[in-house]
Amino acid sequence: MKALRVERKKLRLREIEKPTCGEEALVRVHLSGICNTDLEIAGGYAGFKGTIGHEFVGVVEESPGDAMLGQRVVGEINAGCGKCDLCKADDPRHCPNRTVLGILGRDGAHAEFLRLPLANLIAVPDLIEDEHAVFTEPLAAACGILERVKINKNSRVAVIGDGKLGLLCAQVIALSGAPVFVVGKHAEKLRIAERRGIETSLPREAAKRRREFDVVVEASGSASGFATAMELLRPRGTLVLKSTFAGADPASIDQVRLVVDEISIVGSRCGRFQPALDLLKKGAIDIDSLISEEYSLDKGVHAMERAGKKGVLKVFLRP
Amino acid sequence: MKALRVERKKLRLREIEKPTCGEEALVRVHLSGICNTDLEIAGGYAGFKGTIGHEFVGVVEESPGDAMLGQRVVGEINAGCGKCDLCKADDPRHCPNRTVLGILGRDGAHAEFLRLPLANLIAVPDLIEDEHAVFTEPLAAACGILERVKINKNSRVAVIGDGKLGLLCAQVIALSGAPVFVVGKHAEKLRIAERRGIETSLPREAAKRRREFDVVVEASGSASGFATAMELLRPRGTLVLKSTFAGADPASIDQVRLVVDEISIVGSRCGRFQPALDLLKKGAIDIDSLISEEYSLDKGVHAMERAGKKGVLKVFLRP
Repeated sequence: MKALRVERKKLRLREIEKPTCGEEALVRVHLSGICNTDLEIAGGYAGFKGTIGHEFVGVVEESPGDAMLGQRVVGEINAGCGKCDLCKADDPRHCPNRTVLGILGRDGAHAEFLRLPLANLIAVPDLIEDEHAVFTEPLAAACGILERVKINKNSRVAVIGDGKLGLLCAQVIALSGAPVFVVGKHAEKLRIAERRGIETSLPREAAKRRREFDVVVEASGSASGFATAMELLRPRGTLVLKSTFAGADPASIDQVRLVVDEISIVGSRCGRFQPALDLLKKGAIDIDSLISEEYSLDKGVHAMERAGKKGVLKVFLRP
Repeated sequence: MKALRVERKKLRLREIEKPTCGEEALVRVHLSGICNTDLEIAGGYAGFKGTIGHEFVGVVEESPGDAMLGQRVVGEINAGCGKCDLCKADDPRHCPNRTVLGILGRDGAHAEFLRLPLANLIAVPDLIEDEHAVFTEPLAAACGILERVKINKNSRVAVIGDGKLGLLCAQVIALSGAPVFVVGKHAEKLRIAERRGIETSLPREAAKRRREFDVVVEASGSASGFATAMELLRPRGTLVLKSTFAGADPASIDQVRLVVDEISIVGSRCGRFQPALDLLKKGAIDIDSLISEEYSLDKGVHAMERAGKKGVLKVFLRP
């Protein structure tokens, strides 16, 4: 089968052996989405070797006991060991021995087939088209913020970054009734938020809102975005970190400011899939505006280049 | 009057004019305590110029309308503007225009007299001797952790640092019923915690407890302490930062680890005085073991040197 792989620090489309299901499920991939993490991994982040990609929708083609056979599914990307305290506490996402689809020790979704434990798969309601279902994973990551931080209609929230993740975060948080303020560098991307009634600003003007926000979500993945986030945060406010700054060495955080202003920083990576599927089913999120381009998997290397260009949002791969 | 001052980057004992009360209260200082922050300020932290010191007990000598006259008091060190949103929300500790006793725009406590707004003063119950009352401010800072982070008897808590602040934090947290584990470099200081039934360890052995703790309090103020704190923290755990690393440039925090392990970092500076006074009144905290030496204010410069020596805990100044 075809697979988009990182091998010897190079991104290549390769023909590899089709996996067998073994004790897991074998999923035929219908559509996969390129995430910024894929670009970072191709650039060397996390030292991953193998098939990249973790956003997908597909159909179960083989499985132990034929469970879920023919079912259209999306999949939770972390596969825990099932034995450690965290797995037993139903938190395989933080299992120290976990594998992560296309990120850590497990081949990913930019391929004709992928494998995941049956327990990771979730049926996709018929109402949700493939192009939206692919967004389940990043939307779950946005919803994950609400698992970690209390936000209600009185919370003043800013989101830094107008990329795919920032725009998903902003929309999810706005559904809680909180007034949301998105800071980004691209007028045309900010317009996507504005169409949902969300206030936006270029970074220059955002400086006027210094120390105004209870919660600031850093979703830009840039050092300047981080600086803006800290600027907008009020004393005793909460900074939510959504991005793994791949390029940067451990970025600098002003610890004196953290202590003196009694700021909280909350790292947030992934979230549960069910709330995301519920939102997609309700059509509560503008997904269509976040889709830029689609390529056949054959053109995977080119598609990755496109996904890294300014102004490009989600790029799909179709095997 | 005599005052221990930082002027032109030098620490000196000087004769200055005795302040008048004006619209505030004038307090005759009975006893003041040297905090690590004083040492940092003398080293250039925060660019403060004036009389240093913020831990004190004294008696109100003059005040508008003779309020609290003759009353023995301690004092909340942050004086807000009284007009901004934060002050109106009863949080002058974070007022952007605040002054802070001996730290920011306001002469401090290592002097014969100091001034504070009447609203900042709290009467000291007769049961509490001066030598214990001086600890109200640092003990309040330790209690402040419980304002910011949920800790109960099931929380696994580690405290990094066996200095005055670390030992106060450990004792306060232990009172909540949580098992506390103190990591420090000085066997004789660790023994103070052990006498309270608190488990302790040298850093070398602490490495065995990797990723075991729900909450880790960094109270060492050192880069190695910070690294140990991160090591001991479990995924989704909370790191409480108590120290303002004065010497260091903005210290490095591994943002990738924060996001991947979904860690929270909570900055904690000061706390309310009343819970601290309550603990002192009950004799719930071993304060005596934390007192090392006492000097007359005349010997202030020497006392500051002593306070900076290894193995020395609290040093008092008596005007």
